[in-house]
Amino acid sequence: MSQESVADIGLIGLAVMGQNLILNMADKGYQVAAYNRTTSKVDDFLANEAHGKAIVGAHSIEEFCKQLKRPRKIILLVKAGPAVDSFIDQLKPFLEKGDIVIDAGNSHYPDSIRRTQELQKEGLLFVGSGVSGGEEGARWGPSIMPGGNPDAWPHIKEILQKTSAQVNGNEPCCDWVGDEGAGHYVKMVHNGIEYGDMQVLGEAYDILLRGVGFSHDQVADAFKQWNSGVLDSFLTDITAQILEHKTDGEATVDSILDAAGQKGTGKWTGVNALDLGTPVTLIAEAVFARCVSSLKDERQTAAQKLKGPAKEQFSGDKAAFVNDLQQALYGAKIISYAQGFLLFREAAKEYGWKLNNAGIAKMWRGGCIIKSVFLGDISKAYERNPQLESLLFDDFFVKALENAQAGWRRVVAQATLWGIPTPALSSSLSFLDSYRSADLPSASLIQAQRDFFGAHTFQVKDSAKSDKFIKGQPNHLNWTGRGGRVASSAYAA
Amino acid sequence: MSQESVADIGLIGLAVMGQNLILNMADKGYQVAAYNRTTSKVDDFLANEAHGKAIVGAHSIEEFCKQLKRPRKIILLVKAGPAVDSFIDQLKPFLEKGDIVIDAGNSHYPDSIRRTQELQKEGLLFVGSGVSGGEEGARWGPSIMPGGNPDAWPHIKEILQKTSAQVNGNEPCCDWVGDEGAGHYVKMVHNGIEYGDMQVLGEAYDILLRGVGFSHDQVADAFKQWNSGVLDSFLTDITAQILEHKTDGEATVDSILDAAGQKGTGKWTGVNALDLGTPVTLIAEAVFARCVSSLKDERQTAAQKLKGPAKEQFSGDKAAFVNDLQQALYGAKIISYAQGFLLFREAAKEYGWKLNNAGIAKMWRGGCIIKSVFLGDISKAYERNPQLESLLFDDFFVKALENAQAGWRRVVAQATLWGIPTPALSSSLSFLDSYRSADLPSASLIQAQRDFFGAHTFQVKDSAKSDKFIKGQPNHLNWTGRGGRVASSAYAA
Repeated sequence: MSQESVADIGLIGLAVMGQNLILNMADKGYQVAAYNRTTSKVDDFLANEAHGKAIVGAHSIEEFCKQLKRPRKIILLVKAGPAVDSFIDQLKPFLEKGDIVIDAGNSHYPDSIRRTQELQKEGLLFVGSGVSGGEEGARWGPSIMPGGNPDAWPHIKEILQKTSAQVNGNEPCCDWVGDEGAGHYVKMVHNGIEYGDMQVLGEAYDILLRGVGFSHDQVADAFKQWNSGVLDSFLTDITAQILEHKTDGEATVDSILDAAGQKGTGKWTGVNALDLGTPVTLIAEAVFARCVSSLKDERQTAAQKLKGPAKEQFSGDKAAFVNDLQQALYGAKIISYAQGFLLFREAAKEYGWKLNNAGIAKMWRGGCIIKSVFLGDISKAYERNPQLESLLFDDFFVKALENAQAGWRRVVAQATLWGIPTPALSSSLSFLDSYRSADLPSASLIQAQRDFFGAHTFQVKDSAKSDKFIKGQPNHLNWTGRGGRVASSAYAA
Repeated sequence: MSQESVADIGLIGLAVMGQNLILNMADKGYQVAAYNRTTSKVDDFLANEAHGKAIVGAHSIEEFCKQLKRPRKIILLVKAGPAVDSFIDQLKPFLEKGDIVIDAGNSHYPDSIRRTQELQKEGLLFVGSGVSGGEEGARWGPSIMPGGNPDAWPHIKEILQKTSAQVNGNEPCCDWVGDEGAGHYVKMVHNGIEYGDMQVLGEAYDILLRGVGFSHDQVADAFKQWNSGVLDSFLTDITAQILEHKTDGEATVDSILDAAGQKGTGKWTGVNALDLGTPVTLIAEAVFARCVSSLKDERQTAAQKLKGPAKEQFSGDKAAFVNDLQQALYGAKIISYAQGFLLFREAAKEYGWKLNNAGIAKMWRGGCIIKSVFLGDISKAYERNPQLESLLFDDFFVKALENAQAGWRRVVAQATLWGIPTPALSSSLSFLDSYRSADLPSASLIQAQRDFFGAHTFQVKDSAKSDKFIKGQPNHLNWTGRGGRVASSAYAA
């Protein structure tokens, strides 16, 4: 079993993702070395899934490293956090200058920034790579988002691109994302967007089920119909399959506990958005929606106490409503992705990265959980104008929102009256309405309030007429006629 | 000028808040020492505002410390961050065991946790205290929220409680909040709630101005009317005053640049809510709304491209709509405060603090920016039941929401159709509708999706009928009939 320097690449971590990625790479013609801390998993894998394939196994880190051609290319698919550092430390004694360590787990991007820098000092090339697609994607072609030390890219480009999903037969869903933590950053936002996509689909299901009164099969039919239009995507497709799935004759989904986990990349996206002062509202609402879902016991108590509006029979045109809802989902998705790309814009400034928006959209077109026809339109928008300031400035999406908004508004208004929660569908619509407001009265008022109670001062609009205001300078008004002559400098209420 | 050991308390930092707090303490019968890094400010203060009062000034830290009776009580009102540590370091050589340092700025609570621990090692008593009320509050009685080393409390209780605002003549808006960072934590959430209150008032203004078509004076009249009901509060009051304020005959607020700042305590609250997995959606939306407001140039471009619904004349009953809007504001506020207290509940668990909910509500009734009649009702709810799991379980608020919701729904639905952004009003309503759902179909679907694409497994409801499911255990379905036999363990998509 222990053959030296035979493997093109090695992978550590034989959970389902790791095993499938190995099988995938082997199918693409590469010899792959496999290692797992619990080595019985290695034997089990070799005897079963890997049987007859160009896969070798190792029972120690040393043996594993010896099996690899130089420069060694090692993929870690282990739990994000200390386990990654631990494996890197275990590997180091057996690595040589120029060897490449690819962390393909869901690491937080600041860790990837640090690891790139630390390994560079020792002559090792670190790559932090997002991989999306779940177990099916890993097996048959995931979306791969590598970033880190750019010197690694020429050595791993071919194998990663061949291993990734292909769109239109020969366009790989893998390209170099950027320096240091850029790969994991883009994967983080990908996951945040995934949270958002799942949430809006969940809201649509709820609206049709509890609002319109559809059966599960009727809801599934709506999703199938949508999946042949602008919402054509992996998640729309599997949602239809899930809603059709029966266990003992009843809709399986109805038995599933409605408490969704949320600790991870979705939360990180929300925190990062707040840190960068970027309004990524839909993802944040999706994360918070999972938080509410996890309060299952509390919700059951609340349901006894807090009554909603009286239930009424839906008397409208169901087909028209399904079309409106399609537009609502489409509009919300456009906003969510536009918010994600706003975040890339701010992150690129903050961290000094060059992020290729068109390339990112292309990487997401296939292989990953959020793969969709829609992402083709986004990549086209950034190809038309690589400097596009906002996705919402692209003519295609301007028109799409113009078409979507009437139905979207009807759906949100109706769900609001019915008492069906739409945190993501309504938050994204509010974002659109704020974003397209040249003047936001609420924000002018807030600045006035801050000056009133905290002497925070305010700027005036270019259009301000009175010469009592100073343009381009802080203004302070003595709103009440009381108050002193000293400005606020240290205190921010 | 340099008299030794005469002052009951000293304060460093002579911006408007610091000066006003000194004047306030002097009015209450205390001798106060004043110091500022730029010492000309000390002289200026003594010669003007402090003239004739029991206030002494110092030109050095040493002189300042000598002016204080022991145990010394020193309030820092300087910029949060390194300046606080710097002043503490400068003070230390002149302090003795048992002396008390009170950081009354807007420090982040983890810093106050650290400082409490660091100073305790040196025998010094650190207090991190939130102070709210802006310049007027500082001058005439703020809300003071001290936490930190409890040994300090007996020495500072009288002076802080006398200096704070009084409700009903003799109920101080100041009490001991809890250990270590609890004071600044509660102040942080207070500020987050303040962001939320300001945002919902801003949305109401926008709805009446751009939606209903009211003049500024008509909007001001609505706020005045609300200020004599359930929305009676400082912020409702000053909003009416602001909207009436004219400059050269035109509404002043209309000239104020609609770009609101947001870096600080509001953001911290949102980040902390995400970290603790607690759905504090209204505050997060309020922070993001400020982020959108700051994209002024981008919004002006967007306004050229993205059209909203056609403007229509409001033909409804204006008085009825103003009442509905009052209910919308009231409902949203109830949710916002309930979310804030949910966060206290989770923070108390996370950080090992005992937080007195009734006490906190009482401290906020007066003196601070969010002071309101409403907070009296909250404190009563927690007095009725100190173990109240959620504010939304209290009968008073159950009834209030029952009364509020019809109008609230009509307002959000109408604003949605008009194209007026209501991120806070609608997010809070969605929260209510999620929270009062014993079963959330969207969350069941999300768990099904996660199991479908990532083999994440799911739990089933107690009510699940099929014996194919295992209750209380992770279930995994092979949804497609494809897929392998290996479970996901390391990977979380």
